[in-house]
Amino acid sequence: MIIIGEKINSTLKAIRPAMENYDADAIKDLAKRQYEAGATYIDVNAGMFINDEPERLEWLVKTVQETVSAPLAIDSPNPVALRRALEANKNTKPLINSISDESKRFNAVMPLVAEFKTGVVALCMDDTGMPETIKDRLTIAQRLIGKLTKEGVKLDDIYIDPLVRPVGTGSHYGTVAIETIRQVKAEFPEVHIACGLSNISFGIPCRKLMNQAFLVAAMGAGMDGAIMDPLDKKLMSFVYAAEALFGLDDFCVEYLTKYREGELEM
Amino acid sequence: MIIIGEKINSTLKAIRPAMENYDADAIKDLAKRQYEAGATYIDVNAGMFINDEPERLEWLVKTVQETVSAPLAIDSPNPVALRRALEANKNTKPLINSISDESKRFNAVMPLVAEFKTGVVALCMDDTGMPETIKDRLTIAQRLIGKLTKEGVKLDDIYIDPLVRPVGTGSHYGTVAIETIRQVKAEFPEVHIACGLSNISFGIPCRKLMNQAFLVAAMGAGMDGAIMDPLDKKLMSFVYAAEALFGLDDFCVEYLTKYREGELEM
Repeated sequence: MIIIGEKINSTLKAIRPAMENYDADAIKDLAKRQYEAGATYIDVNAGMFINDEPERLEWLVKTVQETVSAPLAIDSPNPVALRRALEANKNTKPLINSISDESKRFNAVMPLVAEFKTGVVALCMDDTGMPETIKDRLTIAQRLIGKLTKEGVKLDDIYIDPLVRPVGTGSHYGTVAIETIRQVKAEFPEVHIACGLSNISFGIPCRKLMNQAFLVAAMGAGMDGAIMDPLDKKLMSFVYAAEALFGLDDFCVEYLTKYREGELEM
Repeated sequence: MIIIGEKINSTLKAIRPAMENYDADAIKDLAKRQYEAGATYIDVNAGMFINDEPERLEWLVKTVQETVSAPLAIDSPNPVALRRALEANKNTKPLINSISDESKRFNAVMPLVAEFKTGVVALCMDDTGMPETIKDRLTIAQRLIGKLTKEGVKLDDIYIDPLVRPVGTGSHYGTVAIETIRQVKAEFPEVHIACGLSNISFGIPCRKLMNQAFLVAAMGAGMDGAIMDPLDKKLMSFVYAAEALFGLDDFCVEYLTKYREGELEM
């Protein structure tokens, strides 16, 4: 699984004060702990700083790469902030999180993907808004993949976000997300999925329970990447269990190793 | 979900002494607690009593039905024991657990299914042994469903057990079980699944974690019944979460009710 560690995000109350105070140690600690817990990418987001997002995002990039060598997921729709962050980036190929098929956003972000040769998270969303059906999502994914590859982006550098909506607001949204993932991976096996997990449980109680169930079901449909909290030991345990369950962990070697390291939680 | 409560089983060490001592209160307590926790059927098994299984099984049936009105799953391949138990049964239509496509077993059990008009759990297994592939399992399921319906059993009274093998003994066994379920339900939507969950985790640590992941994945493939422990609150929480996730629980009403009743465990 490709895990995009979501903790360094200005919308999260717990980390907001550290960002406000340029507390580099707190940011570094969070980057390091996510990396050690299995994050493939470290996401950095400064979107709540409306007046100085570019400086803040640049600072996050510089701070994180002082402590971990993991690639960054640079999380902004703002081309000015993205450029500052990409120019500051010294780690290996980053992800831009994210582009969409909204024309304004596509036109703003695409040149940066091309110039900096980044990977890119592509949201299943266009100028008509948030798609309702599986078919509508698949159509947008197909269009985005077509446009991105035409610009020279390799399939392997594209991460489709199926745009999960809360199951509490529509009983079909779990199936919509899972079947979108299944169909995207069936049609484009080289393309990755980068699915925001926790949206599924917005507005209902026992969110972690629902997130765990969704993680397993989505992995069963071919989800190979998620934007999630790698410090959530129970959720990570389900990553390892699902990899063993779906035949991605030969002889359960990783599962047994994590068990011996005390990383599995029942 | 159709839940076949598995706790009154002579192979389980915890309950064995109560059976040996004809401790009716202990059996009744276990029946009642499983029923209250959501069991659709109460399984009764006396298979470890090699010398007097018929008497023991009859006693279990009589004891359980003194306290719950739930239908029983009568768990034996032994036609003598099955007949004693079926004649003692006064609750609504029981399940026979189980028949298979092994000719000796089929011929021994089929007449009882017909005579007592029971439902029946049908194992994907024939005279050549345990099938290896999804296709082999599906072929046996098709053959069993054909033979059972020819004898007058309704599709809705057939419960296919895909015969789960431990993922620790073969990395493909998770996928084999899940895809067998998906294909059986796609071809025979009226037929039910009755899947023994805990086999998946035999021989590996943190079995509950793997069982939970398998439950969710199998429900995503259409599993509508399982032989499981309804007293495992965490596992039952995943039943409710998966029903909400897969659109089987409109507006999450059941999920929210279970939460308010304190039945959801994270």
